Order: sequence, then C-alpha cells, then structure tokens
Amino acid sequence: MITFTSDFGLKDPYVAEMKGVILTINSKAALIDITHQIEKFNVRAAAFALASAAPYFPEGTVHLAVVDPGVGTDRRAIVIQTKKDCFVGPDNGVLVLAGRNQSIQHIYHLTNPKFILPKVSGTFHGRDIFAPAAAYLDRGVMPADFGPEIDDPVTLKFAKVKISSGSLIGEVLDVDGFGNIITNITERDVADMEGKTLSLELASATLEIPLGKTYASTKPKEPLLLIGSHGFLELALNQASAAEKFRKKIGDKIKVSVA
Amino acid sequence: MITFTSDFGLKDPYVAEMKGVILTINSKAALIDITHQIEKFNVRAAAFALASAAPYFPEGTVHLAVVDPGVGTDRRAIVIQTKKDCFVGPDNGVLVLAGRNQSIQHIYHLTNPKFILPKVSGTFHGRDIFAPAAAYLDRGVMPADFGPEIDDPVTLKFAKVKISSGSLIGEVLDVDGFGNIITNITERDVADMEGKTLSLELASATLEIPLGKTYASTKPKEPLLLIGSHGFLELALNQASAAEKFRKKIGDKIKVSVA
Amino acid sequence: MITFTSDFGLKDPYVAEMKGVILTINSKAALIDITHQIEKFNVRAAAFALASAAPYFPEGTVHLAVVDPGVGTDRRAIVIQTKKDCFVGPDNGVLVLAGRNQSIQHIYHLTNPKFILPKVSGTFHGRDIFAPAAAYLDRGVMPADFGPEIDDPVTLKFAKVKISSGSLIGEVLDVDGFGNIITNITERDVADMEGKTLSLELASATLEIPLGKTYASTKPKEPLLLIGSHGFLELALNQASAAEKFRKKIGDKIKVSVA
Repeated sequence: MITFTSDFGLKDPYVAEMKGVILTINSKAALIDITHQIEKFNVRAAAFALASAAPYFPEGTVHLAVVDPGVGTDRRAIVIQTKKDCFVGPDNGVLVLAGRNQSIQHIYHLTNPKFILPKVSGTFHGRDIFAPAAAYLDRGVMPADFGPEIDDPVTLKFAKVKISSGSLIGEVLDVDGFGNIITNITERDVADMEGKTLSLELASATLEIPLGKTYASTKPKEPLLLIGSHGFLELALNQASAAEKFRKKIGDKIKVSVA
Repeated sequence: MITFTSDFGLKDPYVAEMKGVILTINSKAALIDITHQIEKFNVRAAAFALASAAPYFPEGTVHLAVVDPGVGTDRRAIVIQTKKDCFVGPDNGVLVLAGRNQSIQHIYHLTNPKFILPKVSGTFHGRDIFAPAAAYLDRGVMPADFGPEIDDPVTLKFAKVKISSGSLIGEVLDVDGFGNIITNITERDVADMEGKTLSLELASATLEIPLGKTYASTKPKEPLLLIGSHGFLELALNQASAAEKFRKKIGDKIKVSVA
Repeated sequence: MITFTSDFGLKDPYVAEMKGVILTINSKAALIDITHQIEKFNVRAAAFALASAAPYFPEGTVHLAVVDPGVGTDRRAIVIQTKKDCFVGPDNGVLVLAGRNQSIQHIYHLTNPKFILPKVSGTFHGRDIFAPAAAYLDRGVMPADFGPEIDDPVTLKFAKVKISSGSLIGEVLDVDGFGNIITNITERDVADMEGKTLSLELASATLEIPLGKTYASTKPKEPLLLIGSHGFLELALNQASAAEKFRKKIGDKIKVSVA
C-alpha cells in the first residue's frame, strides 16, 4: 500500500504520472491519496497532513510525500524506515514529523540507480526518483538497498506551547477546509480546563468561549474551543468558518486561559 | 466495494484517515469516491449525489456517507440494508433517499462497540464509527450485528412537482459543475411535451425554450431544456453555464408549460 | 487498468457513475484518475494531459477520455488501438495526440450494442457508452469487436514551432497548477542554447532570462526558462506563478532567441 501527499493539485497529469510509474513497476500496488492540495511549496503543512494520516494506515504502508521547492538541486532524496512504515521524499523535513511519531530506525540517502528511472528530469523527482522508490519498497526491496545510511536529516521546527502566568500560548498549526483553526496546544495541555469557559485573547478583543466536546455544543455560527480529532485544541464555529471570522492563519499566536 | 460521499473536501487528510482505518480492518477493500465536495453541512445535496450514483454500483456495495453537522451529539449512527446494498452514516436523512430507491429492508442503530474504534473523537465519527462499520460490512459482518433494529429514521422532505392550469411547478434539486440546473421535474412529467417549445417563467421574464434531446441541439451559449442523465428536467446552455446566466440555486422554483 | 481524463470536475457524482458501471462489468478493474479538472469543453487541453500521462502507464492500459461538447449528436464514439494501449472516447480529437505517440494500429467505430448500456442518455455517453467499452476492453474483448474500422478520425491541429532570423516562435500549450507556462518548443529546438541567457519577447518588453536546469537555479520569485518534465520549454518563476506575472494563456505566442 502506497500513500501520496503533494502540492501538485488535481488539474495536471503529474499525480497520474507518478501512479503510472508505480503501477508499471508494481502492478498490484494499492494507491491512496492523502492530499494533493497542500499549499504550494508549504513543506510544513505537508508534514502536518502526513503526520495526521499516517497512524491510521496498516503497518508496512509506504508513504510518498513530494512538496519539493528544491527539486533538481543537491538536496537529498531519502527513505525513512520506522518501526511501522516507510517514508520516501525529499530531505527537506516533509517526512520527519510523521516518521518521528513512529520511531525512526534508519534513514537512507536514495542514490541507487537501480531504483531510479533511467532519465531524471530536473523538475519532477516525484515521478523519476520518489515514485519508483516507493514502488520497489512496496514490492519488498529493503530500505537499506536504496543507498547509504545518513543521520543528519533536515528537520522542521514546530513551536512549543508556552505557559505564562496561567495562560497557554500556542500557535496555529493548520486551518482545515471547514475553517477550523487547529493549534499546537494539546489535549494534555488543557486537561484541567475541561468544561470551563476559557478566555481567548485576540488582537482586537478577549473572548470568553466554552471548551466544548463537539461542534454542536454551541449554537450555529457561535464560536467554541474543543479538542479536535488529532488531539489538538481547535477554535471553531458550529457549522461555519472560524478562519473567516477570526482571520487566523498558520503560524499566528493563540493565547488561552481559564476565564 | 465501499463508496464515499462527504463534505470533507480534498485539502485535508480526513478522507485518507477514513480509508486508512478501513484498509487496516479490511486490506482488500476497493474504495471509490463518489464526491467529497458536497457543500459543507448540506445533507440534502449529499443525499441527492448518493442517490444518483448508487444505482450504478455492483450489488452488495457498501456506501459510506458523512455530511454530519450533528457529529458528537446524540443523533444516531445507522446501517441501512436494502435489497441491493448497505448504507452507513449519520441518521440525519443523508442515506434515506438512496436507500428507498433500492427498497429498504432493515435499519440498525450502530451501537456495537466491537465495530467502533476504541477511542471515539467528538468531531470525527466518519473515521471512528462509520469507517470501521463500512469495513466490517464489506468483510461480511451481517447488518443485524451492528445494533438494534429501528423503524423511525430521520427523513428529508423533497418538494413534489405541482400541476397548476397546465403548468408544471417544480424546484431546483441541484446545480452541477457545468452549471446545468437540475429540477425535480421528471421525464414522465414532461412525456407529452417532447419536441415542443416550452415556456419557462423566470422572475424577470418568460422565455420560450425548446425541449431538446442533447446540449448540442441548440446553438452554443443558447438555452434549452432537456432530460438529463438521471431522468430529471434540466435547464442548460450549450457549452456554457445556465446557473450563471439564470442565477438559480437549490430550492428555487421552476415553472414550465407548453408555449 | 483503466485511466480517466475528463472535464467533469469532482463535485458531481458523474465520475463515480462511470466507475460504478465499469466495476459492475469488471469488478477487478484498477481505476486511476488522470484528471477530471480539464477546463470545460477544452478538447485540446484534455488531449495534452492524456498524451503527457499515457506513456507512464503499463502496456495494455485502457485510457478513457471524455471531454465531449458534442455528446448526443452524431459525432462518433471510437476505440483506438495502438502498439501499447487502447483509447476510448468521442471522435473529436481528444484521443489522437496520445494515440499517435504510441503508433496507432486501428481505429474502430464503437457501435456494437453488446458493449453499450441498454438505455443511452443524450447527455452522458461517458457513463452509457465509453465506460462499458473500457470495462470490456480491460476484460479482454478485442478492439475489433466494438464496430467497423475507420480511417478518418477527427484530429486537432497543434501549432508548429517556427524559426525566424534566429528566433524560435512557439506558443503556449498549457499552464499548469504551479503557474508554469509550458510551450510547444522542445528540448531539441533549444539544444544549442543550454546554459545561455535567452531573450524572451513579451508584448510589453524583452526580458533576458537564463535557460536553467531546475526551478531553484534562479532566486525565489525570479523568472527562468527550462526544459520541463515532458521535454517542453517552460517559462517559470522559482516558487511562484509565471502565469500570474506574465499573464500568458493557452495559445499565446512565445518568441525566444539567444540574447
């Protein structure tokens, strides 16, 4: 089983070309899209989407992720082997968050020409390098066969939650298609706030908002905070877009405390 | 075989998480998307899309539909068994139109914890309740094993076509991606109007439009009425968007008569 | 294996209905989307997408393409058999570019009612004619069984590159989702310009731009020319949209020379 995460969109034939390459090598591969609508070149957003979805796939899944502004340069191509799965993509941090959650065992520099298409374009390593590697991994080739082991992968820094005089200060990790604002504040961080009214500090005002359990625990269009399906604190509206109302975007600060 | 209908969009990893859950339980499941681009929270639009597509799938298909503004509340999760297929989703009407078209045999309240993920989030029953149920149904678990039978599912009211002094008064069921305006007036309703010029009453004017057989039976950009591929009367333009020109949306009234 | 190329979009159940029809006939078919987001009615753009992706699929793949403004008229339905694959769709040129790249052996007029749904709508031959044909082809029915051979398929004219006093004059073939402007000028046309600075004539000005090897061979947001992954000259920005900056669209002229 092979999953796909990219910023390629669905208009162009690029995703299909990767799948065609894979099916030519391994006609029995099951192919599942995680998303191809990552914001263009946003490695961090792709890392978050992949880390969200990967735990739900069966052991031994191969995850291919290509958000790759450095395609064609000397940034490395890598294979990460974890206790559960394998990950293939550019060495720019896109794989590392998902990998770490599964306990990384080895990382290999993908250099073996046996597992790369004979002609490599300077603009589409997804098709010419990563797709064949994923197909061979899924067919049973050992990760160590792809190239030399490395121990210095590029990583991404995700901000940590700070606690300052009773307030939690986090930041926006993602805004989903419903307009829910997903922060890096975790279920554990707010464990003793459950059922309470929280103060949410915005640039313009301070709102008092309940920490609810589900979107419908407030009235339609009304705001609430809740723990979303990945265990992170979300600022949401019931049946409407919090992102539109509060104009928050990835990286913005979020400060909450018990009211 | 399992189909998916939702308002989740394709940007976020939510659909992939449902698929991962299913493939972990049932690695051989064939997964087919009907659509994930239902207007957010529009249960009625999802019911129509599912009812349109379900007849074309092989007998025994499991249809998973999640447009679920009441997620996490006490709205029920249900399994509908028809003569042909099974349907899984929230008890908010999203499944009933498609189910009725296939003759509903039993409806079960999905409560058996054996077929639900151990940890259920308050915001994503698609992943934690409906996806595992679909996977087990596809693996052969009997619908009756999911919980107690019920006989009072939530239904949706779809407007009926009225006849008033020779005019048919219907309403807009859907507007498709081509901008075709699909009404609830059926092939049978207009059986004796075939080949004739019809009067279409709009707020601003009355248009005389042919009842054609295919989009190209009028000139490019010109309007026509025709029976679409699901047997409903459509207001369309040849190679252009009728929805843009006539500004009709779901629920708007449509009145036609022989000119 | 069956691929899909269409302008149906992903909002409506149309693509799923085609897949349901195929899986009812041939439950083991592997189904891969090339794209459903071709600009509505743009046969030329679909022909280009299909021709780009088809070479990467395994031998014997069946390619279904439906961009079909003439649906329901007397335009023919055809099956093209090449040395490598089969193609099914309307006889409006959408299949011919991809077919020719694989050396066309036979073209058949798809008329055999055995391989068509019993009821054919006037608006959706994708579901009622092309999908069943693709399913039967994938199941092993011979192309010649679908109807009489023809030798006069509709073709599309793609402009040729001209050379005029040292300048190459081509045109825009496609603009991809990254905003890269893909021309019909090929790798071979610019073989002796490699590594040089080129002059690009725009309506408003003449730019001097390097012919690079990869997007990152210039600074972020800076323009460059390079050979893209299908072997065509592209005008691109590093990590930004050239289409937005230069406002080029399909069919626009492009003139380059050594600076």
